[in-house]
Amino acid sequence: MERSVRELWAESRELLGLHAEDVPRADLPPAPLAFVRDHVSPGRPLIVSAAATRHWPAASLWPTESYLPDALHSTDVSVHLTPSGRADALAPHPHPRRPGARCFASAHVRRVDFPSAVRLIRGSDPAAGLVAYAQQQDDCLRGEYAAVAGDVDAHVPWASEALGCLPEAVNLWIGNSCSVTSFHKDHYDNIYVVLSGEKHFLLLPPTEHHRLYIRDYPAACYIAEQETEEVPPRLKLEIEEPERIVPWSSVDPYPASPEEMAAQASSFPLYFKGPRPIRCTVRAGEMLYLPSMWFHHVSQSAGPNGLTIAVNYWYDMQFDIKYAYFNFMRSLEIKHSPSDTSDDAIEGELEEKNI
Amino acid sequence: MERSVRELWAESRELLGLHAEDVPRADLPPAPLAFVRDHVSPGRPLIVSAAATRHWPAASLWPTESYLPDALHSTDVSVHLTPSGRADALAPHPHPRRPGARCFASAHVRRVDFPSAVRLIRGSDPAAGLVAYAQQQDDCLRGEYAAVAGDVDAHVPWASEALGCLPEAVNLWIGNSCSVTSFHKDHYDNIYVVLSGEKHFLLLPPTEHHRLYIRDYPAACYIAEQETEEVPPRLKLEIEEPERIVPWSSVDPYPASPEEMAAQASSFPLYFKGPRPIRCTVRAGEMLYLPSMWFHHVSQSAGPNGLTIAVNYWYDMQFDIKYAYFNFMRSLEIKHSPSDTSDDAIEGELEEKNI
Repeated sequence: MERSVRELWAESRELLGLHAEDVPRADLPPAPLAFVRDHVSPGRPLIVSAAATRHWPAASLWPTESYLPDALHSTDVSVHLTPSGRADALAPHPHPRRPGARCFASAHVRRVDFPSAVRLIRGSDPAAGLVAYAQQQDDCLRGEYAAVAGDVDAHVPWASEALGCLPEAVNLWIGNSCSVTSFHKDHYDNIYVVLSGEKHFLLLPPTEHHRLYIRDYPAACYIAEQETEEVPPRLKLEIEEPERIVPWSSVDPYPASPEEMAAQASSFPLYFKGPRPIRCTVRAGEMLYLPSMWFHHVSQSAGPNGLTIAVNYWYDMQFDIKYAYFNFMRSLEIKHSPSDTSDDAIEGELEEKNI
Repeated sequence: MERSVRELWAESRELLGLHAEDVPRADLPPAPLAFVRDHVSPGRPLIVSAAATRHWPAASLWPTESYLPDALHSTDVSVHLTPSGRADALAPHPHPRRPGARCFASAHVRRVDFPSAVRLIRGSDPAAGLVAYAQQQDDCLRGEYAAVAGDVDAHVPWASEALGCLPEAVNLWIGNSCSVTSFHKDHYDNIYVVLSGEKHFLLLPPTEHHRLYIRDYPAACYIAEQETEEVPPRLKLEIEEPERIVPWSSVDPYPASPEEMAAQASSFPLYFKGPRPIRCTVRAGEMLYLPSMWFHHVSQSAGPNGLTIAVNYWYDMQFDIKYAYFNFMRSLEIKHSPSDTSDDAIEGELEEKNI
């Protein structure tokens, strides 16, 4: 029997010319027209070399030890705190009556002065139960970090011309290798610029939606065990009240133990036995164009200053026929027998979901 | 139960901003970047006003009575002859043992001098069993009609810049209101320019594939009853030997009689009871951008010279994620009970085809 979804995966990768370690690279920023035609329209990622940011003051200043702490010494910023470095990610459900269940865990957010934020990030230690990540996906570069926003271009000129608009949000991300971003997609065309350290992306095209087993999880939040302003606090996880449900990917591509790996591979065979995710590393100074609706998982390495620093520009995406096709595909369910973990089990039946 | 395919139809039309009588129009040719971003990438048709062709000698010369017959008086051209004006369309199967069956009928092609071709076209009469259409989809403007090819632009500059290539083929079409082109799609981005008379299009986006009931038909060809060079010949339909199968739309949007209309509506409810096709008329001097993979049905009206004259530019399409999604959607079959002609019958089950 025809395996329509698997053929869709294979054909979309083939037509996009994308293989497992093979994101197209450009030495210079593309011309706007070629960028729309060859990347935005087909939905094909692109890495642009560090030539794209050579004129940014941030390219030389931000990787240093002291520039940002000096420039922001009296600025309060938002720091996301988790025990493990996994914010907006699945975690064991905190209720003892729900053994084995998982929930969607958000970070505990504290406002601290920037030098304290950097100390928290550098001191991050999952073994000690505290990892800090300075980020806030609310246009924070032009908000909390306005004092240093002039160190980068206010927008990406070739992308703005190509997409016909200015960015909806520009966000700053400062962490280190302890922080990991779980698989998700954004409804934006994204230009992701690394300024210190490296970001390691696992990418899946939107056509591979079913491989991520997006299921409904109850929302939870890390809170401080005692309500003090003590920094660093001890964190515990609580289910949000009233209950809120978040659809999120069930897949962890890097399980911590062989047992977890076996459990993941058995539960999520479309991911673990399917085509390899597309991998790329974006180095300091480089830009990644990540097309809207692409699933991405991000891990990172720190630069010489002990930090991974990145800025991303979110441009409103075009909701067009690709988006309608995506929703159509997503509405179809791949049924397979969970008890059968042989290779055949990943072949399934396509059916309309009863939603 | 969710009707995923119907939602796909509704959502793609909604996102493209396309309603039944509402193809976007532009007074001036679009800038190449805006054309790619707003039309090619999302797959959205566009009509450009006659300002686009005002500088073409053809715009004033070709609608006259005598210019083309004079310019081409000694040129042999290909004329497609059918009894009904329907070439490359379904026709009753010629074998008496196959009552009710249909085949895919191609025209009888004759090479005649251009003035004779014009006489045949002007004399077309389905009642008398002969309709002529001068066309050949083989880059014929730059081939058979090279003597007048300089009367139009060799390519459409804004489209060539936008698409990053020159047209693969430029075709000339000369007929009158007796000729009709049945529903089909092309694997090209198409710029269709009317120079005399009007073309009336029925359009369906690629997402509405299932509404056209594309099925396999045996290929047939009109041949002259006697093998003479007599012009006009009497035509009869013969099944091709060896057998050749052509997948073609089963739908005739304009059935000739109330009985045929009832039979079509009962057999093809997804078309006749679904959303109305998008309709547009392209007038002399105007250009239609028809995105690749869009289904189109074309009828026409003659200009003051008794002819409908058009030139179309076929540009290679980009085979990308939209094409992969299309193939995925096409691989799914909508099953419904053919005996049940109530409205409910058009709701069906989506299943993988066993192919």
